[in-house]
Order: sequence, then C-alpha cells, then structure tokens
Amino acid sequence: MDIDWRRNNSLNNFFFNCPSCNLDSHVIVEDFLDKKLQKILNVKAEKLNHAINKGIIKFFQFHGTPALQFKKDVIKIEAGTVIYFKEKIEVIRGFPKIRRTLMLSPTLKNHFKDKIIAEEKMNGYNVRIALVGDEIVALTRRGYMCPYTTKKAVEIMDLEDFFNDNPDLVICGEMVGTDNPYVSHYYEEIGSLGFRIFDIRKKLSNDPLSIKDKQEILEKYGLPAVRVLGIYSVDEAPDKIKKEIKEIGKAGREGMVLKDPEMIIHPLKYTSSEAHADELKYAFTYPFDFGRDFLFSRVIREGFQAFENEENEKELQKRAHQLGESILYPMIDTIKNVDSGNPASEDMIIDIEKEEDTEAFMRHLHDLGVYAVLLKIKGKKAVVRRIHQSTTDKINNFLKGGLY
Amino acid sequence: MDIDWRRNNSLNNFFFNCPSCNLDSHVIVEDFLDKKLQKILNVKAEKLNHAINKGIIKFFQFHGTPALQFKKDVIKIEAGTVIYFKEKIEVIRGFPKIRRTLMLSPTLKNHFKDKIIAEEKMNGYNVRIALVGDEIVALTRRGYMCPYTTKKAVEIMDLEDFFNDNPDLVICGEMVGTDNPYVSHYYEEIGSLGFRIFDIRKKLSNDPLSIKDKQEILEKYGLPAVRVLGIYSVDEAPDKIKKEIKEIGKAGREGMVLKDPEMIIHPLKYTSSEAHADELKYAFTYPFDFGRDFLFSRVIREGFQAFENEENEKELQKRAHQLGESILYPMIDTIKNVDSGNPASEDMIIDIEKEEDTEAFMRHLHDLGVYAVLLKIKGKKAVVRRIHQSTTDKINNFLKGGLY
Repeated sequence: MDIDWRRNNSLNNFFFNCPSCNLDSHVIVEDFLDKKLQKILNVKAEKLNHAINKGIIKFFQFHGTPALQFKKDVIKIEAGTVIYFKEKIEVIRGFPKIRRTLMLSPTLKNHFKDKIIAEEKMNGYNVRIALVGDEIVALTRRGYMCPYTTKKAVEIMDLEDFFNDNPDLVICGEMVGTDNPYVSHYYEEIGSLGFRIFDIRKKLSNDPLSIKDKQEILEKYGLPAVRVLGIYSVDEAPDKIKKEIKEIGKAGREGMVLKDPEMIIHPLKYTSSEAHADELKYAFTYPFDFGRDFLFSRVIREGFQAFENEENEKELQKRAHQLGESILYPMIDTIKNVDSGNPASEDMIIDIEKEEDTEAFMRHLHDLGVYAVLLKIKGKKAVVRRIHQSTTDKINNFLKGGLY
Repeated sequence: MDIDWRRNNSLNNFFFNCPSCNLDSHVIVEDFLDKKLQKILNVKAEKLNHAINKGIIKFFQFHGTPALQFKKDVIKIEAGTVIYFKEKIEVIRGFPKIRRTLMLSPTLKNHFKDKIIAEEKMNGYNVRIALVGDEIVALTRRGYMCPYTTKKAVEIMDLEDFFNDNPDLVICGEMVGTDNPYVSHYYEEIGSLGFRIFDIRKKLSNDPLSIKDKQEILEKYGLPAVRVLGIYSVDEAPDKIKKEIKEIGKAGREGMVLKDPEMIIHPLKYTSSEAHADELKYAFTYPFDFGRDFLFSRVIREGFQAFENEENEKELQKRAHQLGESILYPMIDTIKNVDSGNPASEDMIIDIEKEEDTEAFMRHLHDLGVYAVLLKIKGKKAVVRRIHQSTTDKINNFLKGGLY
C-alpha cells in the first residue's frame, strides 16, 4: 500500500523519536533523506530525491512499519532493495544482476582468476529471506514481500537458529518445484516445493560470504544449498563446462552460475540450449505478454553457443529445429485455444493451510498488477488461474479481423 | 544538407517574393508557418511548430531550393513527406504505411466490399517519382532524394511525356533487381534493375487513382505496372489468396497488396512464409543491426498463417524448422566471419556511367548515416561495401570475452 509519506507520522516518529514535536513533516523527511539516508547508503541526497520524485524509490507500509522500495537501480543500490524503518534501519539490498557469458573462452579466463566454482542455476524464482525486527520475511526479486513464499520458506526450512545467530545476514536462494506460483518446474529431488540457497549476503553492504563460509554456515544450520557442479581451473573450465552444460540440458535443467571462490569477482551465468528452448516455449505460449522481451536474447545465446561448440551440420540443424519449434508450436496452440473461446492462461498450484493464506496470496498478486482468479480449492491445494490479458486480447483481435 | 532556415534568404524570397525587404526573417518564417503552411496541409500551426522544434520536420536545401522533410507522421501528414518551395509549393506526401492482415478470414470481408484486386508486392525499395519544378526526382521511403535512383528511374522509363502531361501526379513503385543498392533480390523478369509501379497518387492530397485509372494511364505512357495476381470477390478471396500466396512463396517471391478497385479503402498486405524466412535470414546475417526489430513480427505472421492454413504436423514442422534455420544459420555464419577478422558487411552493386555518379551516391549514403566504402569499379559497375558496424562491434566484443 502506498502512503503519503511526507505526512506519515510513523516515519516522523522513527526519524526523530519525537511524536509530539511540531516540525513540518515535509522538512523532517527531506532532512532525513539529506542527512541520514545518504550516509547510510552512500548515495548523494540529490540522487535519492530525484529517484523519489521519479517514483523509482517508493514509500510503502509493511505491517505498520514505514519502508522504501527501489523499483530500479539508483547508483549502486540495486532494484529490489527494501529499507524498513524499524527500531533500527534494515537495508535488504536487491539481488545483484548476474551477467552472462556468451563465449566460455576467453571470457572465463579474462574474468576470473585461478579457480571457478560452478553452482547449479535452478529454474524457479529468486527469493531473499531476512529478518525484519523479529519477523522473517521472504522478498521476491523486485522487493515485494510475498506472503506465500514467506510462509513456505519457514515451513520448508528451520530458519530460527540461523536468524537468531545471524540477524544481519540475508539468505538468497531459489524457490523451486511444481507447486510454485511463479515458475513451476519439476525437479526429481524437489517435487512440489523446495528451496535451494546460493548466496548468503550481508544486509546493507550486500557483500556475499565466500563459498567456503557459505557452505559452512549452511551446513551448521542444516540449510539446503544449490548443487556444486564442479571446481575448475580457469584453463580447463571452458571445456569442462561445455560438457557439463550438455548434461544439464539433457537432464532438463537450466544451467550454472560460475563463481569466484572468494566471491570478490562477480559471478557469471551460463545456460543450456534446452533452457533457452523451454523459456521460448513459455514466452510463446503467451507471445504478446512475453514473446518480444524473451526472443532476441535467447536466439543470440544459441548462436554463440553453437559457434563455440563448433557444432557439425547435424547438431546445428537439431538446434535450429528446436529453436523454431519452441517458438512456433506453443504460439499456434495458444491461437487455437483462444479461438476456442478460452483466455490465454496458466494455472498455478499453491499449498494452503487455511483460507486466509489464499486470500493473502491473491491480494499480493493483485498488488503486483497480476490478473488472476482463484479457480478452486481442493484439500490443501488451491489452483490460481493467471490470465495473460495482452495475449488473450491481441489474439482475439486478430482472429476477429484486426490489422497488424 | 541542413540549413539555418530561420535566416535563409531563399526561403524569405519565396515567402514574400521581396528580397529587399528588411523584415526579420524569423518573424517572416513563423508567419508563413502560421498562416500559409497550416492551410496548405490542413494541420494546425501549433502542431507544425511543435514538430519543427522537436526536429520531426527538418528544413534542408535541394539544388538551391528550400525544402521541408517530415521525419515522422505529423497528424495526417505521413513520414517521408517532402515540401519544396519552388515558384509554387510542391508537396510530395510520404507513401502511406500499408497495414497487414494476419488472418485473411474474416479480415478481408470486414475490411473490403465486393471486390479485391491482388497486386504483387515485390521485394525492393519503395520509391516516389515526381516533378519538382522541371526536374524529375526519385525519393526513397523516408523522403531522401537518391541520386542513383533518380538517374536510373529516368533511364529505365521514359517519364517525360507522363510528367509533361501530369505534373501533379506522383509515381509510386518499387525499384527491384540485383544491382540495387538497398534491397538486392533476383527476379527472372527484371534481372539487374527494374521498376514496377503500384500507385499513382496526387501531390498534396496523396489521393490515389483508382486501379482502372492507374492501369489506363500507365498503359498510355508505356510505364511498367506491378503484376495483377487476381481479382476476387471478398467471399472467395481468403481461399484463393491462401493458394496464391503458397505459389508466390514457392517462386521465391514476397507477397501481395490487396486493394479496393476504387482505392477508397486502404490496401492491406499479406506475405509468404518464404519471404518471412528470407527477411529473417537477412536480419540475422546482421543480428545486432536488424535482428531485434525484424524478429518478433515475422514470428507472429508465421504463427497466424500456420493457424489459418490449418497445417498438418508435417507442414507445421517444415515451417518451424525453416524459421529456426533462417534465424540461426546466418547468425553463426556471421560470427564465424567476424571471428576470421572480417567486418559484417554486404556488397551492393550499382550501375555507373561516370565517376561523379559513384561520388554522388556515396555522399548520399553518408548523409543517410550509412557506413559504406567504395570497394571497386569494374567497367560500368561499382561495388559498394556497406559495413554493419553494430553487428561487427558487438560480435567482436563477445568473442573477446565481453559480457552480455
């Protein structure tokens, strides 16, 4: 919920801990932004003010606590960053964008030094779990607290000891599985819902623990880590990873994140051809919602991967045919489906305990601007239908004779 | 060449025919725009002024004549419109964008009445030929006078009688053939260079002649028209055109423009699957120059065409495989080529008579912002190499380890 933050008392209370003072709240907030927040974030006040005026930084209220959400990057502060004004200021930084390598060689050698640890990149959604006051919250990529994710995270994992001992750490991981309201993907070892942790980062600084420290702390608290696929020297990495990525693809899995053991150098991602195809299939099931944004970059990845693999005619042909089929087949299925009178929609299954869970999740989707309806509740599962309106409307228009 | 139009004497001379008057030229031009141009174009002066201030309408000089070029649509005045301030004002309107039908049925029946004339849409570049003063000029789509096109148009066709009798008509057609500096495509009946006329329009109003009037006038002056592929009732059109477009595709040709015989209803275009594939092949030979813009819309056309054709599994597969190959193969060839140290480039052949022809054309390309070098002159042919810089630079960057 957006609030009129310039007139918001709780914000003022927090800033000066002086509810009875009669200072103009506008001045107080401006003053706070100018003097305090710029020091905390190490971003100039004028940049913060500009971002607030442009709606890039939004004020909202979370369980009565005033808070800020960064919709886009503001200098070094990542999109998805959330700042809670509790007894102390809690800054949970956005998960940093991981850049992609198109060519393993020479990129890995240029980018890393000595060793590379390859962790599995799983196909789910990115979640940060952190303590806000005495509450554990799970944030999705853009910085929204998802009630379903929050509930399931603490169900799936025993997080209490971890956060009691480490209130200033943020758990970054992937929510995966089939009963997943954002990205449903079957993993044999996961089944309906699971969580895999890839990073432990510090609040405010966003500094990640080294791989070793991360592994130790996860082991200590019995928390689930993503798989390590290999540890390579920079010289052997391209060949090893070329082989590994084929295996990952064959197993219907996504790809890998390549990391400096010390986590000082930024990680890079590299994905399988099958993952590109799967993403295109999804995007072209809803072509007018996702097609345009997804298409070009996946095609480019395929081109460079094929080139680096020095694929023969047959391999190339297989890749090209898979590309064409991934684009065309789902689109035609959706056109047929819309032609039959159905909307372009996908059904998401969520685990529920009580009716309020579903309501909270539906409200959350609504807040995100997602058009979804509760289809049915069957025992402990709810089926939520997400309607892809742009695809539905555009296809209907063209079928009725609309011009392109 | 852009000129400081607010201080341009020839413009003032034209406006008031009074070279010795001492009025401030700024005032004169503003006055002209406010009072005269808005009446001529039937567009409010404030809209014209806004477009001038935004650089959407640009002043330039053509052979000493002041002129205006519309870079984008301004209300009803199309992008590509050029206005010459000669003894009289010559307004050559931009060629109207032709919209596309994705579904033949029910679109054709909704859009047209009674009859549809299907003319061939050829794969070349759109040219408008008109008289400016006593000079015949050929304009490309965006409203640039191309010296090569102008020279070849009057060589290929005997236009003098036509323009003597019809100084207020504009010939709209396609320059096609292999010796074509913009879009090279082989047509058996054309060979190296040819022109095919699809519309005759009126200066200023942009009103087209009816098909019958157009055919009569072209016949009278011995000017070459595009092929008529068929005349259909709106009821039979979808089936007939479905068959016809397959033949067109098999023959390696582009598609058709569907027209109201009276040219009162706007024409529509419809293209073959092979044309989509060919365009994608071209675009993905230079993926970072054209790939993104070309890709999505061609994919969408393929999807609806396949759906409307009710293609069986084998036909669908053929279409999907062709799509994938058209995207991936040329891209990989270009990556290989750039990896070998070559730029991503294409060679264009132009007919020349004397050195000045080549120089004028190279200057024209430079004015368009096209990076091209004269490779060689061999007899009456010049080979111009166009460098696609973005593709060359980006691929080089990724090959050297640049991140995506």
